[in-house]
Amino acid sequence: MAKEFSVTPYEVSGEVNYDKLIEQFGTQKIPESIKTKLKKAHPLLRRGTYFSHRDFDLWLADAEKGKTISIVSGRGPSEKMHLGHLVPFLAVQSLQSIFNCEVYIPISEDEKFYVKPSLSFDQAQQFADDNILDILALGFKKEKTHLCKDFSYAPLYGMAAKVAKLISYSTAKAAFGLQPENNIGWSFYPAVQAVHILLPQFLHGSQRTIVPVGIDQDPFIRLTRDIAEHSSLNFTKPGALHAKFIPGLKGSAKMSSSDAENDVIYLTDSPETVKKKINKYAFSGGKDTLEEHKKHGGNPDIDISFQYLKLLFEDDDKKLNQIEKDYRSGLLLSGELKALLIRKINEFLKNHQTNREKVKKDVEKYLLH
Amino acid sequence: MAKEFSVTPYEVSGEVNYDKLIEQFGTQKIPESIKTKLKKAHPLLRRGTYFSHRDFDLWLADAEKGKTISIVSGRGPSEKMHLGHLVPFLAVQSLQSIFNCEVYIPISEDEKFYVKPSLSFDQAQQFADDNILDILALGFKKEKTHLCKDFSYAPLYGMAAKVAKLISYSTAKAAFGLQPENNIGWSFYPAVQAVHILLPQFLHGSQRTIVPVGIDQDPFIRLTRDIAEHSSLNFTKPGALHAKFIPGLKGSAKMSSSDAENDVIYLTDSPETVKKKINKYAFSGGKDTLEEHKKHGGNPDIDISFQYLKLLFEDDDKKLNQIEKDYRSGLLLSGELKALLIRKINEFLKNHQTNREKVKKDVEKYLLH
Repeated sequence: MAKEFSVTPYEVSGEVNYDKLIEQFGTQKIPESIKTKLKKAHPLLRRGTYFSHRDFDLWLADAEKGKTISIVSGRGPSEKMHLGHLVPFLAVQSLQSIFNCEVYIPISEDEKFYVKPSLSFDQAQQFADDNILDILALGFKKEKTHLCKDFSYAPLYGMAAKVAKLISYSTAKAAFGLQPENNIGWSFYPAVQAVHILLPQFLHGSQRTIVPVGIDQDPFIRLTRDIAEHSSLNFTKPGALHAKFIPGLKGSAKMSSSDAENDVIYLTDSPETVKKKINKYAFSGGKDTLEEHKKHGGNPDIDISFQYLKLLFEDDDKKLNQIEKDYRSGLLLSGELKALLIRKINEFLKNHQTNREKVKKDVEKYLLH
Repeated sequence: MAKEFSVTPYEVSGEVNYDKLIEQFGTQKIPESIKTKLKKAHPLLRRGTYFSHRDFDLWLADAEKGKTISIVSGRGPSEKMHLGHLVPFLAVQSLQSIFNCEVYIPISEDEKFYVKPSLSFDQAQQFADDNILDILALGFKKEKTHLCKDFSYAPLYGMAAKVAKLISYSTAKAAFGLQPENNIGWSFYPAVQAVHILLPQFLHGSQRTIVPVGIDQDPFIRLTRDIAEHSSLNFTKPGALHAKFIPGLKGSAKMSSSDAENDVIYLTDSPETVKKKINKYAFSGGKDTLEEHKKHGGNPDIDISFQYLKLLFEDDDKKLNQIEKDYRSGLLLSGELKALLIRKINEFLKNHQTNREKVKKDVEKYLLH
C-alpha cells in the first residue's frame, strides 16, 4: 500500500507520489514530445525535477510561431538565499537562453513584510535588494529581463486593485489559508501575487506566460488562471512548470532554510563551510564500511551528493553516467563523491559571488518603474 | 421617552440625539472656548453643524504656538457631486483661510472601485478627476493644498502596507462591516483610509491633524487613532471635527444621492433645475394656507429652505436673524423664502461652475506624486 502524503502551499508531509499529485491537481505530466525540445536545457529541466505543467505545450507552440511569450518567476526575499532558492531562476535563465523570451522577476517584499511579524519595512526592502543580486548573478539577458519591487513599483497598486476586485475574501482565505487574526495586508496579497503572474500581460497585453514553481504552489497558479480571462482583464490563462522538491543536505524532503542552517548551502557560504557541510551532513547512499562499499557499491538514488550533481552541478550527461556507474559499482567511494560535489559547488559559488558583485552597478537597468 | 436611533458608518436611522451620540462615541462637545475662535468661520462651523470633536483643542493650541498642523479631508469620488458632498470641504477651506495650514485631500477612487460592483477602473478614475474640479473650485491655497489620487500616488501602497500590518482582518471587519463575499480590495481599504488620515504625518512627521467628518464616520477615525502611535509609525493620534447630518431637500435625515435625484442639488444643476427642485421638493415649515401662515407664521426649525440658508448660504448673521424672525412671524411667506434660497444657490452654483472651469489648468499643481 502506498504511503499517505499531503502537499499544500503551507506543508509537505509523507513520501510524495508525484504521479498521484498530477492527478490530484489536474496538471499534465511533461511528455516526451516536450522533453525532446529541452535537450539543451539546464539539468533541472531535462532530468526530471520539472515534471508537470499547465499549458507549457501552448507556450512552446507560440514560441515556435515567433509570438510574444514570457516567463515570470518571483521571489519573496529572505535574509539570505540558498541553493534551493535558485531552482526556478536556473530554469528561467535556461529557458530564456533557449527561447530568447522576456523574463519578469517580481520581488514580493510586501508578502514577507505582511507574513513575518518581526520583519520591519526597511529590513524587507534590504532583503529584496540583497536577493536581487543573487538572482541577477545567474546572468539574464539585460534587455529582456525586468525586475519589480512591490514597494517601489508605482503601477502595482492599481493593477492589484483590478485583480482584487475579482477575488473574494473567502476565495483568498481558502487558497492562502488566511486567518481572521492575520493582518489585512496578508488578505490583499493574493491580488498582488496574481498581478506578478499576469505582469507581462498587464504591461504588453494578452500572451502566453509560463511560471516555474514548486508543485506545492500550484493552487496560486490556479487562482490566477480562474480570473485571467475575466472581461475586465481579457488576459490568457498563465501556464506553469511544476518542480519536484529538491531534498535538503540531510535528506529531508524539501530544502528549506527554516529547517536548519546545516540542511542547506547558502550562496554566501565559504569554501570551508561548504566542505564541512557536505562532509558532515550530506546524506550518503554509500555503505557503512569501506569494504562493504567496495563490494556492494553505493546507492546514488538516495545519495544527496549524487542528486545535487545530477540536478544542479554536472551538466555533462556522460560524466554523470560514469559517476553513477562507478558509485553503484563501489569503485567511487562516498568521500570521493562528496569531494566531487564540494569542488563543483565551490566553483559555482566562486563564480556566483564574483557575478553578484559585478551586477551591482546594473541593477537599475533591470528595474521597472 | 426618547425615540430609538442608530448611527453607524453604514446606516443612520431614527431621530438622532447628538448629545447621546457624543456619550456613545466618547467624543467631546465643541465648547464655548472653541466656538469663540471660530466666529469668522463658515456657518457650518459657527452655527452648530460641527458639534463634536476629538483633540481639536490640542490642534488649536498647536496652531497658536505656530507649530505645523494640518487638515485632511478625503473624497470617495462619485459620478457627480451634490451640495452635501461639499460640507467637509467648505469647513476645510474656511479653517485653512483662518489658520493658514496645510490641507491634504486624498481621493479614494479605489474605495469606490472595490465597493461598487459595476464601476469600472476607468470610470472610477474619471469620477476622481471630475470631483477634484468641484473640490478645487472652492478655492484652496495653492501652495498649501495637496491632492492625491490613490491609483496614481506612487508611495501609497508602501504606506498602506505599513498600516495594514497593524490591522487584523477581524478588526477591519468589525469597523467596516466586511463580509466574506466582499473582495479583498475592500478588506485592504481600511489601511488605505488610515494612510489618508495620516498622510501629513507620513510625509512630514508627527503633527496634529484634524479631519472634518460626518459623526457616523467616527469609527474610522478611532481605528486610525488606535494605530497612530505604534512604534513602527510614531505618529500623533489624529483629531476630528464631527458634523451633524445635513437634511435632504425633502427633509430626510441625511442628504444622499443614493436616496433620490430630487432630494439633492447637484453642483451641475442648472438655475431652472434648482428652481424646480426647491419649489417642488424643499420641505416647508410654512402653514398650509396663506391665511394661516400670515396668522401663525412658519417654523424655520423644520423648514429646509431656512436650514440651507442657515447652514450654507446666508453668511450674514443679521440678515439670517431677520429672515428667521419674519418667517416665524408670518411676514415672510414660504414661496418668498424659497425664492431667497433659489437665488443664493444659483449665485453659488454660477460662481462654482465658473471656478470649476478655471481650476482645470491648475490641477496638476495640487497633485502629489
